[in-house]
Amino acid sequence: MYTVIPVSLQLQPPALVLLDQTLLPETETFLFLDTREAIYEAIKKLRVRGAPAIGIAAAYGVYVCLANGQYRDLAELVADFSSLKTYLASSRPTAVNLFWALDRMEKRLQQAVSDPNSEQDTVRSALLEEAHAIFAEDQAMSRAIGEHGLSLFDKERDWSILTHCNAGGLATSGYGTALAPLYLGFERGYRLRVYADETRPLLQGSRLTAYELQKAGMDVTVICDNMASLVMKMGNIDAVIVGADRIAANGDAANKIGTSGVAILAKYYGIPFYVAAPSSTFDPATKEGKDIVIEQRDGEEVVNGFGRRTGPKGVQVYNPAFDVTDASLITAIITERGIIERPTTEKVLRHLGIKSV
Amino acid sequence: MYTVIPVSLQLQPPALVLLDQTLLPETETFLFLDTREAIYEAIKKLRVRGAPAIGIAAAYGVYVCLANGQYRDLAELVADFSSLKTYLASSRPTAVNLFWALDRMEKRLQQAVSDPNSEQDTVRSALLEEAHAIFAEDQAMSRAIGEHGLSLFDKERDWSILTHCNAGGLATSGYGTALAPLYLGFERGYRLRVYADETRPLLQGSRLTAYELQKAGMDVTVICDNMASLVMKMGNIDAVIVGADRIAANGDAANKIGTSGVAILAKYYGIPFYVAAPSSTFDPATKEGKDIVIEQRDGEEVVNGFGRRTGPKGVQVYNPAFDVTDASLITAIITERGIIERPTTEKVLRHLGIKSV
Repeated sequence: MYTVIPVSLQLQPPALVLLDQTLLPETETFLFLDTREAIYEAIKKLRVRGAPAIGIAAAYGVYVCLANGQYRDLAELVADFSSLKTYLASSRPTAVNLFWALDRMEKRLQQAVSDPNSEQDTVRSALLEEAHAIFAEDQAMSRAIGEHGLSLFDKERDWSILTHCNAGGLATSGYGTALAPLYLGFERGYRLRVYADETRPLLQGSRLTAYELQKAGMDVTVICDNMASLVMKMGNIDAVIVGADRIAANGDAANKIGTSGVAILAKYYGIPFYVAAPSSTFDPATKEGKDIVIEQRDGEEVVNGFGRRTGPKGVQVYNPAFDVTDASLITAIITERGIIERPTTEKVLRHLGIKSV
Repeated sequence: MYTVIPVSLQLQPPALVLLDQTLLPETETFLFLDTREAIYEAIKKLRVRGAPAIGIAAAYGVYVCLANGQYRDLAELVADFSSLKTYLASSRPTAVNLFWALDRMEKRLQQAVSDPNSEQDTVRSALLEEAHAIFAEDQAMSRAIGEHGLSLFDKERDWSILTHCNAGGLATSGYGTALAPLYLGFERGYRLRVYADETRPLLQGSRLTAYELQKAGMDVTVICDNMASLVMKMGNIDAVIVGADRIAANGDAANKIGTSGVAILAKYYGIPFYVAAPSSTFDPATKEGKDIVIEQRDGEEVVNGFGRRTGPKGVQVYNPAFDVTDASLITAIITERGIIERPTTEKVLRHLGIKSV
């Protein structure tokens, strides 16, 4: 059996085909993006989201635009790349992966152009290769996280796993991070059941995680965030796996708001709590979680988020996007390189091959 | 300064005036109910909710109907009371307080009728007196809970209090249970700030608690349920107060789903966790929380509750209405009789004046 992971982005020349995540789970609409304006709009309006997915969309986007462009000569193509890069980079000015992918594409372009025999088509081929490489590397990273994560489970029994937010295929090239062990396990006949926290206020858990797991044919149940305690108490959760947005040198992990609460509940009920993320998520320059600044978002997302006002007009709302889970609450961090059990600064730096911060 | 508690139900002959809670917080609509059909509909459709408030609405409702009714003689009035009682009792067949209030009204009617000098108007007066008494007793109970609860705070410093769901004025005659100490404190110049968990899936916290506290001029901030951990970690919560639906003999307390998670977080962060409820909430025949059956509700409330689908069609949803907070997580239970610190079966029975179960 092979898991059908929902394909959320794919190159189909002359277009980049994107699943519009803003319409999920009500409507499954694929966008055929073959102009720079369309690609810019899709990134800006969060039709594609998740750091790896944004990088991949930008890389394929660059290729699609240059492949569809008509240029008198190579110099014109190179000049157009520059303006295209600036334009796409401005679509989400805080998305580090967007710049990273565009920089990689630029480097590859420069390398290709530096070849005295280069022509428009050899440069286009080089860019296609680079975009495919970005995609493939992300897939390999997800699978490696999946393999390491899956080693924490076995086939001898049923496993019921709780996850928070969406660190799945929709945010990446396919397997995700937190969901990668679950997809791999499902492929291999592990008996897995998933509980998805709906994840207020933006409901990535019920809108995206539940959608993609259901699509893959897996056993998934949506709960409100505040139901996790009862589900754990009933003995229905064997492990928690979540993703991470940034991990400090000591293992404190920033992730979607609510993650730290789930970790505290897991500790109280004696349930292992795992964080799964690429090793690039570590920021060794940040010593501890308290040094991570928490993004604050518009309160209307909380009291007026789904087409209906759910709080009184003018009420104060506190709407932090992330929280930080203390390393002491984390049973293990899973990366594509392996597993860090009971993370400490020493273990994290060793895992990353860094001597000291 | 006197706190303006939003009046959610009031006798204004010839009608019972009710704030339609189903339209909050978007619209503040008062209903003038002067027929039995209108009163029945308001209770059935949850336009009035909260056990004490339902009882009061039924009591005033009975009075309004009999006051507006034209009867040839007293016997006809008594006969009409009977059919009215049966009719109103069927509006919410699980609301214990509804039957309790109707039974009290019936007892008073019988008592009044047994007087050989009784006339239609003396019976009507007796019923009005009884309905007012039910209202006044609830108010006194709320104020007593408020006084006992307020003794846990002082005026020397700022207090920031987290509450979950709505155990406020809207559910009672005015002050509520969990919110009673806060209303009283506000009246007396205590420096209080309230955080209201929005309380998924039905959002009683953001729809009702935030509404009534804002209306009273208090400092209230709405958060999503999953933000409580971060707000506590930041040192922004000094105490948690919640209501209860049913409390077992050992102090285990059933309340709105999510309450047990808040209690675990409070324990982790070293924050006192208080339960405020009338002593009638205790069910001494239930030894422990695990004997309390948890009501399961329709999953559509979770994935289709905002007027927009927020989970994929056909996805499994687990939607328990309540959870049970272990007595070991409760710093104190506050009733109209006083405070039970660190509740145990022995202390609870002593508080209730019961020798043994």
